[in-house]
Amino acid sequence: MEKDKKLVSEITSMETDFAKWYTDVVIKAELIDYSSVRGCLILRPYGFALWENIREVLDKKFKETGHENVCMPLFIPESLLEKEKDHVEGFAPEVAWVTHGGSEKLTERLCVRPTSETLFCEHYANIIHSWRDLPKLYNQWVSVVRWEKTTRPFLRHREFLWQEGHTIHATSDEAMEETLKMLDVYADFCENVLAMPVVKGQKTENEKFAGAVSTYAIEAMMHDGKALQSGTSHYFGDGFAKAFGIEFTDKDNKLKNPYQTSWGMSTRIIGGIIMTHGDDSGLVLPPYIAPAQVVVVPVAMHKPGVREKAEELYNTLKDAGIRVKIDTSDNSPGWKFAEYEMKGVPVRIEIGPKDLEQGSCVLVLRVNREKRFVPYGAILDEVNKAMADSHKLLFDKALLNRKARTFTAKTVDEMAEIINNKSGFIKAMWCGESACELEVKEKISLTSRCIPFEQEKISDTCAICGKPAKHMVYWGIAY
Amino acid sequence: MEKDKKLVSEITSMETDFAKWYTDVVIKAELIDYSSVRGCLILRPYGFALWENIREVLDKKFKETGHENVCMPLFIPESLLEKEKDHVEGFAPEVAWVTHGGSEKLTERLCVRPTSETLFCEHYANIIHSWRDLPKLYNQWVSVVRWEKTTRPFLRHREFLWQEGHTIHATSDEAMEETLKMLDVYADFCENVLAMPVVKGQKTENEKFAGAVSTYAIEAMMHDGKALQSGTSHYFGDGFAKAFGIEFTDKDNKLKNPYQTSWGMSTRIIGGIIMTHGDDSGLVLPPYIAPAQVVVVPVAMHKPGVREKAEELYNTLKDAGIRVKIDTSDNSPGWKFAEYEMKGVPVRIEIGPKDLEQGSCVLVLRVNREKRFVPYGAILDEVNKAMADSHKLLFDKALLNRKARTFTAKTVDEMAEIINNKSGFIKAMWCGESACELEVKEKISLTSRCIPFEQEKISDTCAICGKPAKHMVYWGIAY
Repeated sequence: MEKDKKLVSEITSMETDFAKWYTDVVIKAELIDYSSVRGCLILRPYGFALWENIREVLDKKFKETGHENVCMPLFIPESLLEKEKDHVEGFAPEVAWVTHGGSEKLTERLCVRPTSETLFCEHYANIIHSWRDLPKLYNQWVSVVRWEKTTRPFLRHREFLWQEGHTIHATSDEAMEETLKMLDVYADFCENVLAMPVVKGQKTENEKFAGAVSTYAIEAMMHDGKALQSGTSHYFGDGFAKAFGIEFTDKDNKLKNPYQTSWGMSTRIIGGIIMTHGDDSGLVLPPYIAPAQVVVVPVAMHKPGVREKAEELYNTLKDAGIRVKIDTSDNSPGWKFAEYEMKGVPVRIEIGPKDLEQGSCVLVLRVNREKRFVPYGAILDEVNKAMADSHKLLFDKALLNRKARTFTAKTVDEMAEIINNKSGFIKAMWCGESACELEVKEKISLTSRCIPFEQEKISDTCAICGKPAKHMVYWGIAY
Repeated sequence: MEKDKKLVSEITSMETDFAKWYTDVVIKAELIDYSSVRGCLILRPYGFALWENIREVLDKKFKETGHENVCMPLFIPESLLEKEKDHVEGFAPEVAWVTHGGSEKLTERLCVRPTSETLFCEHYANIIHSWRDLPKLYNQWVSVVRWEKTTRPFLRHREFLWQEGHTIHATSDEAMEETLKMLDVYADFCENVLAMPVVKGQKTENEKFAGAVSTYAIEAMMHDGKALQSGTSHYFGDGFAKAFGIEFTDKDNKLKNPYQTSWGMSTRIIGGIIMTHGDDSGLVLPPYIAPAQVVVVPVAMHKPGVREKAEELYNTLKDAGIRVKIDTSDNSPGWKFAEYEMKGVPVRIEIGPKDLEQGSCVLVLRVNREKRFVPYGAILDEVNKAMADSHKLLFDKALLNRKARTFTAKTVDEMAEIINNKSGFIKAMWCGESACELEVKEKISLTSRCIPFEQEKISDTCAICGKPAKHMVYWGIAY
């Protein structure tokens, strides 16, 4: 049992140092390894499998909603990046530049895509001529590069994986409908697949995407009260279309500019999963995207029938499509329990000689360590139930945390007092002026997370300037 | 019907100009579009769907054979690329260099990965310590960049998609077994999924991968008699391990270097599919990876019952997991027939008023335009049969082409005479000396494709120098 203790003790406790706890979990659970290029991280099999499962669920949803996958080039010529003024201002300071191919200097620098609006626009200008060519509902699963100064596993890489949807429509209404539809897809995914409650809302002018008319986001709260922007959806109007000369002949025979959207979710959501659900024993994975949903651990494996029964249960679950693992290695059961707890496997099945006598096995839920004694015939139903229960427990726990850490304030002084003592969201009214938003940022280091769709009236006046309020805003400290 | 003629006439005939025919098909079938960066191409939905289907089948096979997916960084520091001497010599001349991040000059240049051996080695050195850590059987699906001078859609991009497997083993035997096993996986995939017959063999020293001890490849023959290297598998011995300081403590408590392999298949295989199976009407797709395996075309759609029956057939196939499309647009049936022929959809189902009367529909095979009259109740069985038959017809046709275009020669003069009049593979004996191989390349522009595993004895002496022969070699002109 000393080995078990060592293993667990290697993870810093959340209360002691949340940031250290996070890095410990990421490394010990073998999600990530560092490479020699700072900020470019290696997704190890367990970490990448999480992304594969996320991708599988989201991709299916994208296809069901009519989207097609494409693959755009990795490189953007400098002149192409510069075509939309706001966009280049937002991205140029943080791109990686390719200047040489082999031994030759390029005639024009190429940036490694930080996002692909400009590439999609160039392609759309080529292929869209008539209203019959619209809409195009495209998506791609790729990596992008942003030369960030400070980096953290999953949360901020210089290179990260994401999907970026890019759609183009004949009318503004249709594009706006798409923008909000995809935000709903993200929110639904976070809540019903990742067990992460989110707040849906609009970003302020200061916080919106470079080149967008409006940006919508889902904001999640981490265990420590900080915010994580978990997915964004942008409405571009016809701004990009005008900058890139995308035109189509409409049914009325008039030449028009189409309307565009883009939307993305990235590997940073894995950071969100870790910080929403994890505990001092390590990862706690939401069952529907866990690489291993169940692990079967035979106890006293040498005793007659134990290993056979363990394998039988394993096969039953595997044949039913459950992602199940069996550990018949020579490590001790105690070591195995600690290992799979650290790796956040949602359900553990223990089976030993005593269980054999009683014709049942023990099913342990990772989320709360609840033990359930299950007869063999009921194993599949009980595993499915344990996963559904785990999902709900995780969601409820996260929602409870968010509720406990969401405060209201009527003045900027109240905001300051709250944030000096607590960590979380502050709901406060805002007049809509950038100056007030910036004042909050400078004075008390809070940023506007979003203007939530579900508005409440905290007071009549802006918490900062006292003028009539336009919106209730969620303020917080963001990862 | 004029529209139909126009559509088909836009594709250059294969006999007139095979290269032009190829480009026409790639563009008209909407597989690819050009971007403003030469050699960096856009995979459009239909082209990317082909890659998605290829990936799905191969990825399943990789996982069944114990491999796990990971994701390594996009960038390799110059000093890391330089660690293995042969490897850097092979790749440095054709890499793209990142020199700036944002506005700052980097202290060390980074290349965009042309292949990832060096990154995997660095990671292995971090994570492998004991025999218990071996083997690692990793793979990744990514894009790589090679700054080629001349480019062609699918066949040679500056950026292309591929998978690269990288494995590391305790013993040389195990690594060699893996190398050959993955070559078999590729050969099996080409023949049984893509209907492309391949020759398995070893590459000569001149043609092997930079840094490998030995390289194995599968070579396919295109319709025009040229060769396409369709997949490669490399055995590295412990050369990379030594260069990167990868060591493990073996069971005997001794410190040893492990043995490595890598293997890859890329989007160029799509070029191979096009050039193996296509015809003057356009693409002909092998059924098991076709994005649409079946298209249902209602004829005289306004007549009572036609559209309903078409939709019923569509739903029957869709529910059975067939990738099926229905075209109820207002284009003429003739236009639709030509369109889906050009897109290479393996099976077309026509259903009109006369078919309704007879209680059947017409099933047309793309590969040979054979028509089959099928009663509704048998539709699923008949579609599956049509796909299996199409696969076999495609394979047999390609094999026939290869046989008709495979020649034998006893001397270099005979080789020259054959290749001046015909295009194809030449089987000829070789002494094993580089000088002879290079002479063939310089004099008659043929390269050694491989030393096939299935050896034949054409003569006793090297076709070039007349000294005793060691191997029978396939020679050809390669894409």
